[in-house]
Amino acid sequence: MISVTCVAPVNIALIKYWGKRHEDLILPVNDSISMTLSTDELCAKTTVTASETFERNRMWLNGEEVPFEEGSRLQRCLKEVHRLAVAKGSQKVPPSWKLHIASVNNFPTAAGLASSAAGYACLVYSLSRLYDIPLNEELTTVARQGSGSACRSLYGGFVQWHRGALDNGSDSVAKQIAPSDHWPDMHVLILVVNDARKKTASTRGMQQSVKTSQLIKHRVDQVVPDRITKLRQAIRSHDFQTFAEITMKDSNQFHAVALDTYPPCVYMNDVSHSIVSFVHDYNERMGSYHAAYTFDAGPNACLYVLAENVPHLLSAVQKVFPNDLTDGSTYLRGLPIPEVENTESSKIDSLDVHAKNAFRYIIHTKVGEGPSELGAESLLMNGLPLEH
Amino acid sequence: MISVTCVAPVNIALIKYWGKRHEDLILPVNDSISMTLSTDELCAKTTVTASETFERNRMWLNGEEVPFEEGSRLQRCLKEVHRLAVAKGSQKVPPSWKLHIASVNNFPTAAGLASSAAGYACLVYSLSRLYDIPLNEELTTVARQGSGSACRSLYGGFVQWHRGALDNGSDSVAKQIAPSDHWPDMHVLILVVNDARKKTASTRGMQQSVKTSQLIKHRVDQVVPDRITKLRQAIRSHDFQTFAEITMKDSNQFHAVALDTYPPCVYMNDVSHSIVSFVHDYNERMGSYHAAYTFDAGPNACLYVLAENVPHLLSAVQKVFPNDLTDGSTYLRGLPIPEVENTESSKIDSLDVHAKNAFRYIIHTKVGEGPSELGAESLLMNGLPLEH
Repeated sequence: MISVTCVAPVNIALIKYWGKRHEDLILPVNDSISMTLSTDELCAKTTVTASETFERNRMWLNGEEVPFEEGSRLQRCLKEVHRLAVAKGSQKVPPSWKLHIASVNNFPTAAGLASSAAGYACLVYSLSRLYDIPLNEELTTVARQGSGSACRSLYGGFVQWHRGALDNGSDSVAKQIAPSDHWPDMHVLILVVNDARKKTASTRGMQQSVKTSQLIKHRVDQVVPDRITKLRQAIRSHDFQTFAEITMKDSNQFHAVALDTYPPCVYMNDVSHSIVSFVHDYNERMGSYHAAYTFDAGPNACLYVLAENVPHLLSAVQKVFPNDLTDGSTYLRGLPIPEVENTESSKIDSLDVHAKNAFRYIIHTKVGEGPSELGAESLLMNGLPLEH
Repeated sequence: MISVTCVAPVNIALIKYWGKRHEDLILPVNDSISMTLSTDELCAKTTVTASETFERNRMWLNGEEVPFEEGSRLQRCLKEVHRLAVAKGSQKVPPSWKLHIASVNNFPTAAGLASSAAGYACLVYSLSRLYDIPLNEELTTVARQGSGSACRSLYGGFVQWHRGALDNGSDSVAKQIAPSDHWPDMHVLILVVNDARKKTASTRGMQQSVKTSQLIKHRVDQVVPDRITKLRQAIRSHDFQTFAEITMKDSNQFHAVALDTYPPCVYMNDVSHSIVSFVHDYNERMGSYHAAYTFDAGPNACLYVLAENVPHLLSAVQKVFPNDLTDGSTYLRGLPIPEVENTESSKIDSLDVHAKNAFRYIIHTKVGEGPSELGAESLLMNGLPLEH
């Protein structure tokens, strides 16, 4: 019996992935760029155990067994890893040994944060460690077939998922633009918004967009390529102003395309739009971009902000979206936040309250590294049944 | 002293007007199509009085005096009418006589229904009666310079505002596609949504869209022309299915473009999106389009529905958006609604409640005629100060 345990990060897209050109291979209609978040605050953790005695492959997600079906994305990832292991002549684990896989996310599913990217990245990375396969572009094509944006979670820092041109998807790979230590003071506040609406699953949503939106083609052909070039340059040159503007515009355009879909897909809610309005007000008062919002297929906001501006931004957020929770330790999560210096407080004194108790909690995190293997002491047991 | 009193209708766009190619002349970037609503339920009413003894032009809107400034849109409309009167050699009223103008809307401003279209149409039509100028395409260019969509309110039924190609705007005119008796059973339910947010004024919003949205060009060049052709055909052939689909898609696309604007313009709220979702559910249950939503620059929904389907649709609306108001006479306004036949009630039994008390009230109205002159007994006094 041999076990491997790894963690993998969440990534948040700056240029959004929306729309596939091939459903099964998960080939996107446009390039996307993301920032990888530190695994200290948010991560998936996976233990893969291979044993001669296991009768069949099984998987547990957050403690609940999930089907390991023929033709599933899970199965496809495993097959692809086996193929790479055979190609490399890896002898570490016989391919005939069945696997037990346990995976957990260290953040509540209720938070509505996309967990599949971190989850599939962690699965594929763990399998690569098990079968002794190197992390390279080819491995990102495997993660991509689990969940598109999972390919971006195989690297730390700033990552571009290249659309690729080939039908077989072999050039639809993720590549690092810059490592996390290139811009280490790039921080994020995640505002987890209370929301109870049912929404269109993103897989279905992007299918419908490609089929029905008349604007998506224009986005893909005429808008995204230029944004990719400019955002890469902004990241390379630590240009937060350009970074912020492209990020906000691309978030808005993704939601515009979702709305142009028929029937329309709506992921932001009134609170989300209120955050957008607040960020624009705030930046205007500060005289330049101090914060940039982005929203994925849900109502939660990710605010990009440089480390030095975190305390001031947070105090503005708390003024505009106050909460009644007395236990600050569960409301404010993640990296500690230094006391605000009062020098700039006059700029937010006149901000109006938009909504009370609008957020479930706020997570403070920052740019981080890609997946990593943990020691044997980190073996994941809590996701597995006792007989494991 | 000579007085003229007229009423003019509200119109609701099916293909949206959004974006100007000339700010002062109010020339649009694309053609639009609207339906004129009956003045029995919603209208502007204007009395224009000309007198040798008036010292200056004055205007009262809903009882409050508004400035009559040089260079204002109001002033521009009056000048244009004078120009037409001179050109026609009209002798009815000397152009040197000053005017007192009183205008009221018979619906609360708080309803958030666009009142400027009806208001300027009524002003221009009243002036045309005063100076004995015929209602023709040229007159629509005058109303257009008051408020773009006002040109569409000069005709009843279904109306197209042609973008035009000339720099001076003389070919940017409204023309009737079909009169109201062409499709008399085209009814509308207006769901007036409770909302307290501040929003971007539409004049400013469309300026920003033209300047910053990367999607609006594609809409204008590639999407709207085809929709105009198909919607004209659908109206001519009483094809409610095509009418409904184009109307809903165009509403969605207008709001998508607003969202792609930077900073984004957001006019729909959670309740609006909930109405969208309800209409799609409802139509799916009914097996074909029985209702079509459209939203202007605000959260209120206009639901187009054929007369025979009004009672059933309303009962579905009431099931999904119940209200606690005990006085039905103020909640349900406008045309009476026959009792629902129970034959189809099973199809809405399983609809879930989306939101309670989400609407301020519901107005039931239908396609209607253009502006008309009223008798002397209708002289509007309530908008004017006593000394008038």
